[in-house]
Amino acid sequence: MTIEKQMETYFDRLYPICRSISGEGYQESLDIIREIIPLEKIDFASGTECYDWTVPDEWTIRDAYITGPDGKTFARFKDNNLHVVGYSLPIDKKMTLDQLKKHLHTLKELPEAIPYVTSYYKQNWGFCLSYNKYKNLEEGSYRVFIDSELKPGKLTIGVLTIPGKTNQEILLSTYLCHPSMAVNELSGPLVTAFLYKKLLKEKRFRHTIRFVFCPENIGAIAFLSKFGRELKNRLIAGYVINCVGHGDIYTYKKSRRGNTLADRAALNVLKHQKLPLEVIDFFPDGSDERQYCSPGFNFPIGLIMRTMYGKYKEYHTSLDNKELISFKIMKESVNIYWEVIKTIEENTIYKNRIQYGTPQFSKSKVPLYPNTMVSNKYNEHGVELNKMLAMINYCDGENDLLQVADDKDYKMLEMIKTRDNLIKAGYLIKSV
Amino acid sequence: MTIEKQMETYFDRLYPICRSISGEGYQESLDIIREIIPLEKIDFASGTECYDWTVPDEWTIRDAYITGPDGKTFARFKDNNLHVVGYSLPIDKKMTLDQLKKHLHTLKELPEAIPYVTSYYKQNWGFCLSYNKYKNLEEGSYRVFIDSELKPGKLTIGVLTIPGKTNQEILLSTYLCHPSMAVNELSGPLVTAFLYKKLLKEKRFRHTIRFVFCPENIGAIAFLSKFGRELKNRLIAGYVINCVGHGDIYTYKKSRRGNTLADRAALNVLKHQKLPLEVIDFFPDGSDERQYCSPGFNFPIGLIMRTMYGKYKEYHTSLDNKELISFKIMKESVNIYWEVIKTIEENTIYKNRIQYGTPQFSKSKVPLYPNTMVSNKYNEHGVELNKMLAMINYCDGENDLLQVADDKDYKMLEMIKTRDNLIKAGYLIKSV
Amino acid sequence: MTIEKQMETYFDRLYPICRSISGEGYQESLDIIREIIPLEKIDFASGTECYDWTVPDEWTIRDAYITGPDGKTFARFKDNNLHVVGYSLPIDKKMTLDQLKKHLHTLKELPEAIPYVTSYYKQNWGFCLSYNKYKNLEEGSYRVFIDSELKPGKLTIGVLTIPGKTNQEILLSTYLCHPSMAVNELSGPLVTAFLYKKLLKEKRFRHTIRFVFCPENIGAIAFLSKFGRELKNRLIAGYVINCVGHGDIYTYKKSRRGNTLADRAALNVLKHQKLPLEVIDFFPDGSDERQYCSPGFNFPIGLIMRTMYGKYKEYHTSLDNKELISFKIMKESVNIYWEVIKTIEENTIYKNRIQYGTPQFSKSKVPLYPNTMVSNKYNEHGVELNKMLAMINYCDGENDLLQVADDKDYKMLEMIKTRDNLIKAGYLIKSV
Repeated sequence: MTIEKQMETYFDRLYPICRSISGEGYQESLDIIREIIPLEKIDFASGTECYDWTVPDEWTIRDAYITGPDGKTFARFKDNNLHVVGYSLPIDKKMTLDQLKKHLHTLKELPEAIPYVTSYYKQNWGFCLSYNKYKNLEEGSYRVFIDSELKPGKLTIGVLTIPGKTNQEILLSTYLCHPSMAVNELSGPLVTAFLYKKLLKEKRFRHTIRFVFCPENIGAIAFLSKFGRELKNRLIAGYVINCVGHGDIYTYKKSRRGNTLADRAALNVLKHQKLPLEVIDFFPDGSDERQYCSPGFNFPIGLIMRTMYGKYKEYHTSLDNKELISFKIMKESVNIYWEVIKTIEENTIYKNRIQYGTPQFSKSKVPLYPNTMVSNKYNEHGVELNKMLAMINYCDGENDLLQVADDKDYKMLEMIKTRDNLIKAGYLIKSV
Repeated sequence: MTIEKQMETYFDRLYPICRSISGEGYQESLDIIREIIPLEKIDFASGTECYDWTVPDEWTIRDAYITGPDGKTFARFKDNNLHVVGYSLPIDKKMTLDQLKKHLHTLKELPEAIPYVTSYYKQNWGFCLSYNKYKNLEEGSYRVFIDSELKPGKLTIGVLTIPGKTNQEILLSTYLCHPSMAVNELSGPLVTAFLYKKLLKEKRFRHTIRFVFCPENIGAIAFLSKFGRELKNRLIAGYVINCVGHGDIYTYKKSRRGNTLADRAALNVLKHQKLPLEVIDFFPDGSDERQYCSPGFNFPIGLIMRTMYGKYKEYHTSLDNKELISFKIMKESVNIYWEVIKTIEENTIYKNRIQYGTPQFSKSKVPLYPNTMVSNKYNEHGVELNKMLAMINYCDGENDLLQVADDKDYKMLEMIKTRDNLIKAGYLIKSV
Repeated sequence: MTIEKQMETYFDRLYPICRSISGEGYQESLDIIREIIPLEKIDFASGTECYDWTVPDEWTIRDAYITGPDGKTFARFKDNNLHVVGYSLPIDKKMTLDQLKKHLHTLKELPEAIPYVTSYYKQNWGFCLSYNKYKNLEEGSYRVFIDSELKPGKLTIGVLTIPGKTNQEILLSTYLCHPSMAVNELSGPLVTAFLYKKLLKEKRFRHTIRFVFCPENIGAIAFLSKFGRELKNRLIAGYVINCVGHGDIYTYKKSRRGNTLADRAALNVLKHQKLPLEVIDFFPDGSDERQYCSPGFNFPIGLIMRTMYGKYKEYHTSLDNKELISFKIMKESVNIYWEVIKTIEENTIYKNRIQYGTPQFSKSKVPLYPNTMVSNKYNEHGVELNKMLAMINYCDGENDLLQVADDKDYKMLEMIKTRDNLIKAGYLIKSV
């Protein structure tokens, strides 16, 4: 089965589940993901303090609908779980249209879409429906029915660590908490899980790689409350993975510091692929970069996305669905992230053994340099030769390989073969 | 009476007076200005050494004209005080046209204008007249008559200080020494005086604000000879105010250092107004920035102007008059300077109480964050919300508020309400 | 005789000689150059180790040609010395066309050109011929004949030093090793030699100036093996001079550090001349900058060229000949390099005596500033006056003159007269 097909199969199982930041739907989804990546579950009981936050009660939803004056039900949870505002309290009550409207959410500018609404931290209830339905509601008596429960329970995050040769660490974080939405939710955990599968084919990593799957915000803050301190000395690069299933551009949102290894590695890869690239400075909103890049942590965490959250009109509505998402793009996203991680893995500081003058390559037992110089076309000197000369000169024990690549406009991964030849020939020597 | 009207009334009184760097016209003008701002007069006797300069003798002029071969007088001081070269020595003498012409100044490229000419530091005499008049002068005997006097006296500057909570100081300097010219002279002292009036409405200032009215160059150097040393430790920002009454652009001329608080505050305000903005690097010519930004002082002094000196053709001629100047623009200039001073006043370093992760805003007793998240349009998140998130993240005890504003492209003054809410909610804490 | 004519005379003598990195042709050429600049010869015996390199055996070539199946000879060394691959071993042998072709070099894209090929460091033999000739070779028996010799001998470099007031040093390096080619070979040593002649007209230099003429690569490395260490503390700027005889642009290739005195002086001159200027970041290939800018040395060495090596199609072929080269351009190159050296010579840090406020120029006994201010056109203040004000303000004991020139967009050499006036008037004082 192709990777695209495998991802689609998991997508089809995950899509209908009503996820939230806690509860059955979340646990069921995490268990499906764990078929791909064997995450360890870590629980935080309701009421646990995580920095400024408190883990909320657990939410269970069984059914919900509105019965109209004509006796027909609509906004049925069982038709689309977006119809219920996330974390709605239970209710069973009659009311007028005016009373009802205070609890209805709709989107006039996208009249067919059901918007996605939550109220995690303020007790409330509500329904979401399309503007087309909403505008035709007639006066009369409505009955609202929500069969839900909010009670102490737990918040769960899934964590897996691949130990590396060093405890310098790469963090890959994604979130799981949105109900039936495709690009802004499922593309993230699926790409992350399949990235894990692809990385597993490598024998051994230089860096420790840690995966985190968690509900957005509260999950990241819970993770940080437990592991943030140890990450401070270890984390060298990381990414929040989401919005990786739709759009004909790449977007890179920089870390707060803007020039970390995470930024440099991602941009080195992204600048050498074919799609248009939009680079966005950090802003303290969006997804879990809000937490990772809060000033106390200020972690080297960026985001490689296709079209960014909020930049496509279907975002956070029922139109962010299987029609919108592309499994081919998700596979490309797995590959891009794989390349970025390889870039970090291969990046080292080298020093050329010959620092004074160029080496006399004709002495090398490994054939490197053309012995007969024939070119009258200086610029057509093999790309290979130019790379070699760049590495010989710029590997001075100070620049890392990524720096050499960026300065001379190479994709770093395309320098690896040359680097290996130069190591074999006894020129390049690891400097750290 | 509107501010425009008030300014016009003062303008009409000041315009006809024959000002120079000393003498009666200067004193009379300063006294009129003192009706608006109660400046203390500080005198420097002729001969006083001020750094490399020596205060010159005082000049008095009573009358001047030329009598032509036809017996008619022209270039009459009483018609336009620009007709006499500033600091002309007394003379009463007959001469040929050729002899006369060595002492005549005219502007061929602006044939109707009388140019403005001075000879403060070399004893001489001369007349200025329009090219139209000049070109029709016929051969014959001319009599030149100047009833003037040059004798030891004094140079006077006007200074007023509004004490602040700290002795960190903002300096506002303008000059008074040009005879009947509007944009390049009277717009400066009038805007500065009315800025004082506007500032007086504030209860109390964090910074000490010092106003200086003085003759250009020699006045600034005299001021600096007395107060320059104390300013070295106190001055955090300042401006030379002139050319603020004409033109449909703003010009900002940077301080010599180029990135001082003066530059940052001015540019933050100017970038968020509607007119085109021209930003000019410091050059050591122009007005009193020559003195304030001489390398020994190297003060944080810039200039917010409309059209800059020398950039409009009427500059330093009789055509720089009431027709050219706009009282509406002068009022706008008062407001812009007021905003810049407010920006400096409000700029502080804050630190968000929650440095690890974002705050859980739902816990705040002051309502700050929408409890129900409904937006599918990420970018339409309220401007207010974005500002709040920016401040929460970037107020880390290192960036001042102006830095946060500039980084995130806000007008700093438009962040004040949000800042105050965040202070009230217990998040932002003053860091210095 | 004009300089152009003199250069042409030397060119005509040097062009036909078969130069290589060693041997008679090289020695003969160096001796001709020594008629212009009395270089001291420094020899390195074959087998000498120079950093990573070993000085190769000396090559002598007396004759070479191929006899075709028709009995006619072609690719005759005596017709054009490019026909023989440099450092070809002796041979006298019959072979088939197929066997022969493995030793033939040709350029399909420039069908009339004989390419320039060498094999210094791998023992081999070969012929070069035009594609037009090559494509018409018929099957049959060929005889190849090369009367050459490869035996221990020496490598020679030519060095001359003009002692300066200090041992801070400017290095001018050019190469001599290509057979009959014009732009990429003879323009370099000829311009360098005539630059020496022009510099000799100066009485005395502040800096020591060292000239190096050597075979490319191995010659530079040999020079560095002997003098590199002493240069480390002395070298403040230098240039590799080549490709200075053809093209309607200037090219500046920066030193590896990119902002050395060599770069700043060259760019200050080049930005104020009329031809288009292409500025190229350092890349570790090309000519002897490879050696001088190897990371161990990392010398302040750049290249001022007209059209760069490899950027014109005749490069490294028989078409790089007298038709291509321009003696007028070579003379211009002498002048540009002369200006750059003068710029380095004149560049010093000055400090204005008056640091607080501007000087009162009217006190100066040397007339500097107009005593009567008449300009209504601020921007037409004499260029002279603006320069003077810039120097008075920016010469603060920290900026060198080149910095002031670059900041204010002057050609530094055009500030010298003003500087001298300001020194004479007692304002500018040398700060180091």
